[in-house]
Amino acid sequence: MKKSIRAFAPATVANVSCGFDILGFAIDELGDQVEVTLSDEPGLRVVLIEGDGGRLPYEAEKNTCTVAIQAMLDQHGFDGGMEISLYKGLPLGSGMGSSAASAAAALIAANALLGEPYDKKELVNFAVEAERIACGAAHADNVAPSLLGGFVLIRDYHPLDVIKLPVPKGLFCTLLHPHLELNTSDSRSVLKKQLSLKDATIQSGNIAGLISGLYQSDFNLISRSLKDVIAEPTRALLIPGFYELRLAIQRIGALGSGISGSGPTIFVLSPSRKVAEEVATVGQEVFAQIGLEVDAFISEVNDKGAYVI
Amino acid sequence: MKKSIRAFAPATVANVSCGFDILGFAIDELGDQVEVTLSDEPGLRVVLIEGDGGRLPYEAEKNTCTVAIQAMLDQHGFDGGMEISLYKGLPLGSGMGSSAASAAAALIAANALLGEPYDKKELVNFAVEAERIACGAAHADNVAPSLLGGFVLIRDYHPLDVIKLPVPKGLFCTLLHPHLELNTSDSRSVLKKQLSLKDATIQSGNIAGLISGLYQSDFNLISRSLKDVIAEPTRALLIPGFYELRLAIQRIGALGSGISGSGPTIFVLSPSRKVAEEVATVGQEVFAQIGLEVDAFISEVNDKGAYVI
Repeated sequence: MKKSIRAFAPATVANVSCGFDILGFAIDELGDQVEVTLSDEPGLRVVLIEGDGGRLPYEAEKNTCTVAIQAMLDQHGFDGGMEISLYKGLPLGSGMGSSAASAAAALIAANALLGEPYDKKELVNFAVEAERIACGAAHADNVAPSLLGGFVLIRDYHPLDVIKLPVPKGLFCTLLHPHLELNTSDSRSVLKKQLSLKDATIQSGNIAGLISGLYQSDFNLISRSLKDVIAEPTRALLIPGFYELRLAIQRIGALGSGISGSGPTIFVLSPSRKVAEEVATVGQEVFAQIGLEVDAFISEVNDKGAYVI
Repeated sequence: MKKSIRAFAPATVANVSCGFDILGFAIDELGDQVEVTLSDEPGLRVVLIEGDGGRLPYEAEKNTCTVAIQAMLDQHGFDGGMEISLYKGLPLGSGMGSSAASAAAALIAANALLGEPYDKKELVNFAVEAERIACGAAHADNVAPSLLGGFVLIRDYHPLDVIKLPVPKGLFCTLLHPHLELNTSDSRSVLKKQLSLKDATIQSGNIAGLISGLYQSDFNLISRSLKDVIAEPTRALLIPGFYELRLAIQRIGALGSGISGSGPTIFVLSPSRKVAEEVATVGQEVFAQIGLEVDAFISEVNDKGAYVI
C-alpha cells in the first residue's frame, strides 16, 4: 500500500515595508497544497500540477517542490522514491510567495513521511534552496513565514538565523492583487544599489519601531513604523494606483500599506477585520478608477504556518 | 529663602553597534549633577562649574544646561530667574554622553522647580536643543536614555518618536575609556555618506535582532546581533586596540562590544557582573600592551534614568 501525506502552506508577504529583505508574515487560508507519496522506484518525480495554467515545470531539478525535498534528502539520506502532486492555490508571480508556499508544503509532507526528522526551523534551510531555483536568489523571507507562521525575522543568512516574532491579536491583512503583469527582473533592476547613510538610518529606526510594535501589540507604533525609504520609492512607480490606495486606506483607519514581495500585490495592515474589509472595498474602487481589476483577500495574520492536512 | 533642587543624570552609550544613530542606553552611578536655584533676578545664569578642568562655557547661550532649560521655558513661560551649578562627573569628549547628562540633569531639576509641568519624554525635546549646541547636531540617542533610563529607541526625529525598550535582567556593561584624544570632527568625517543596499540590509537585520533580543531577554540573540557594518569599520580604525579587545572579550564570554557614541570609549555588554568585571581586567591588559592607560567602569544597565536627588 502506498503511503501518502498531504500538506498545506500559506501565502506570505515578504519585504514588509521597512522590513526589506529581512521580514515576512503568513496569511490564512490562501496557499498551496502538496501531496507526497512514497514509492518503491527511487528518485523524486512530480506527477501532477494543478492550478498553474501549465506554467510550472515537471522536471525534478526545476520544480521548487522537488528541489526542496531533494535538499532535505541530501542531508538526511533516503533510498526510496517519492511522487509529488502540487495543487496551486496561489497565483504565480503575484508577490504572495507562490513558489515558497509550494516548497514549504512539499517539505512538511515529505518530512512527515520520514517521521519528522527536522523541525520547521531546520526545514527553512532546505526551502531556501528551492527559492534559489525559483527566484534566482536564496531568499528566506517567504519560505520562513510560510513554514513557521506569524511574523518571521531573517536576521542573517550566513548562517541562517530565523526569529519568530509575536503576532498582535486582532491584526488583519488585506491583500490586493491588481491584474497587472510585473516583470520580476524589472522590479529588481529598479532597486538602487547604493543609498545614503541618512536613508539607511531612517530604515533602521522604522524596522526597530516595527519590531517593538509587534512585541508591545502597539498598533499605533506599527502604523508609524510602516515606512520604506529603500525599495518602495522606485518599485511603487511600477504599480499604478499605489499611492492613491495609500491615501484612501489611511482615511479609513488602516495601519499602513506596502508592496508584497516585489509586487504587484499590495498588503494593507488593519487593526480589525472590519477595517480590513473596508480596505478591500476601497481598494477595488481605487483600482477600478484606473481600469484595473483587483482580487482582494482578507485574513488575520496566520500564526500557525504550514501543516499536514 | 532660595529654593534649590539638585538632580543627577547618568552617562549613556549611544550608537549601540547596529543601533547607529537610533539607539542608546543608560549607565548606573556615573553621571553629572546639576543644582538649579530659583532667583528673583530674571534670566538663566551658570554660577558654578566643577570637574570640567575649566573647559565648559559659562555663557547661557553656549552652556548645555542653560540652553536646555531655556528651550523648556520658551514653551512653558517663566518670568523669574534660575542659577545653575554644574558638577561634572563625566569626562568631556569621551563618548559617554557628557553634554547630554548635563542637559538632562538641568532639565530634571528645573522641571521639578516648576512643579513638573513636563514628563520625561517631553523633556527629551528640550534636551535635544542643548545637543544641537554641544555637538552641532540635534541627536537624541544620549539625552533620551539619560532622561528615561534603560534602552531607548529614537524611531524618528520629525516629530521626535522615543520608545523605551525593556532591559533584560542581569545585563551588565563595562565602559573602557582609553586615555586618547579623539577629535569628534575626525570621527564624523570618516563616516561614509553612501553605503551599499547589502550593508543597509545587514544592519537592518541586526537592529531587528537586537530589539527582539531585548524583548525576549535572549542574551545569545543580543550577542549575534551586536554587529555594526556602517560606522564601526571606519571609526574603529581611530581607536587602537579596538579589535584586539573584541577578540579578548569574546574569549571570556562577553556578549559583544562597540564604540560608545563616537568614541574613544568602548562599551562591552556581558551576561553577568562577573564577566563584566573580567572584561575590565582584560581590557586594561589589552590597552596596557599598546601603552594606553584606560579607565574602566562596570554597571548594570540603568533602567531609572535621571532623577531629583
